[in-house]
Amino acid sequence: MNERPLILVSNDDGYRAKGINSLLGVLKEFGDVIAVAPHTGRSGKGCAITSEVPVKLTKVHSEPGLEIYSCTGTPCDCIKLGCHAVVPRKPDLVVGGINHGDNSAVNAHYSGTMGVVMEGCMKGIPSIAFSLCSHDADADFTPTFDVIRKVVRNVLERGLPVGSCLNVNFPDIPQYKGVKVCRQARGSWVNEWGAHNHPRGGEWWWLTGEFVTAENDERADRVALDNGYVAITPTTIDLTDYRLLEDMQGWEF
Amino acid sequence: MNERPLILVSNDDGYRAKGINSLLGVLKEFGDVIAVAPHTGRSGKGCAITSEVPVKLTKVHSEPGLEIYSCTGTPCDCIKLGCHAVVPRKPDLVVGGINHGDNSAVNAHYSGTMGVVMEGCMKGIPSIAFSLCSHDADADFTPTFDVIRKVVRNVLERGLPVGSCLNVNFPDIPQYKGVKVCRQARGSWVNEWGAHNHPRGGEWWWLTGEFVTAENDERADRVALDNGYVAITPTTIDLTDYRLLEDMQGWEF
Repeated sequence: MNERPLILVSNDDGYRAKGINSLLGVLKEFGDVIAVAPHTGRSGKGCAITSEVPVKLTKVHSEPGLEIYSCTGTPCDCIKLGCHAVVPRKPDLVVGGINHGDNSAVNAHYSGTMGVVMEGCMKGIPSIAFSLCSHDADADFTPTFDVIRKVVRNVLERGLPVGSCLNVNFPDIPQYKGVKVCRQARGSWVNEWGAHNHPRGGEWWWLTGEFVTAENDERADRVALDNGYVAITPTTIDLTDYRLLEDMQGWEF
Repeated sequence: MNERPLILVSNDDGYRAKGINSLLGVLKEFGDVIAVAPHTGRSGKGCAITSEVPVKLTKVHSEPGLEIYSCTGTPCDCIKLGCHAVVPRKPDLVVGGINHGDNSAVNAHYSGTMGVVMEGCMKGIPSIAFSLCSHDADADFTPTFDVIRKVVRNVLERGLPVGSCLNVNFPDIPQYKGVKVCRQARGSWVNEWGAHNHPRGGEWWWLTGEFVTAENDERADRVALDNGYVAITPTTIDLTDYRLLEDMQGWEF
């Protein structure tokens, strides 16, 4: 690489969040960094896009090697708009995070941080999501920095296959046992709703719930995290179930 | 199956849309049907969930064998809340659609219709999404009914593997050449934003764009559709890239 890498960053907690600002500090070591992040929290937005209202883009910070933009859209919108209207050339890397909260297992589907990275991946850019298993707005992200550096260095040097990205989750502990490359853990959310007593009546519900898994294999991301490891889950944007595709050849329509 | 199948239905165009009402008419032939659908359009919401405001659930229609509820949340919320607060037992089938618009290729990631079905799948329920490649609010869905019946009958009889669901897309033509079981086509969106002239100034953008693919293989869903076939894409909720997982065993962290 002859010039400094160009790194496009977003998140789902908004551009003011401690997680993205911690990440920007680390990424500045590697190249020129442009952040296009939601103007406020967009947790749980998955790969949602904004098609029915226009979105506003505002430059909020500029220093040598770092620009930060606020966008009123979703995390996916931020990457789409950053690529269209902000970056001077195709980025070498898209990074999402550091998310305040776990994005392992099926949570990858709901995650706006993963939305950032799936979108980067759809654009053919090597993409990495980083998430810390703590929802604390003032969480301590410093234990993640060393692994983030190693993952970023690996990806800048090796690249990633087209259509594949990385979902990296950190347990909320000061010292990790190590790093494991994992598969997405199976499991599901239960007890997902609490009744809400609305002042004007009607049937209202709050989304809440607990994630349960019967897995105990450390090759599953959620289990590796519970056991004190950083979990890196290689993730594809190709949703095809190729085994079922074969099996269905015998179906009659 | 000793009792009539219980079928939970949702969509992303809202409970009043022609697509879901066309679908309900077909599904009533197969069992007892409960629809929990957004109170208005929720296109492009992917697997988004609503965590920061409560959602309202309202029964809007009831007749023997069919109940319809309106929900202020996302398509995923509708299935989550339907399963928690509406259905008398675990549904035998979750169905999303019929969507007004194409959900093939990478559009599966953005699709609220696929959000319905990914959520059903995460809950261990066989799940099928149906989409017609027309955004016309008054599109003619009748050509889809025969294939919908065949797909539903197959899935009720055979089941689907845990963690797998079906993404069925119909070309907008009166007579199909046939049905193909496909993989997700590669491709991406370009020219995605148009500048918006906001009355109070600022930099505003509208999401738009064109989907481009270099594929010409009819085993890819988008190509099969272009060639006049119904495309059924078997879809997994396991995002793990197992090949990359193997390759990364040599990475140093």
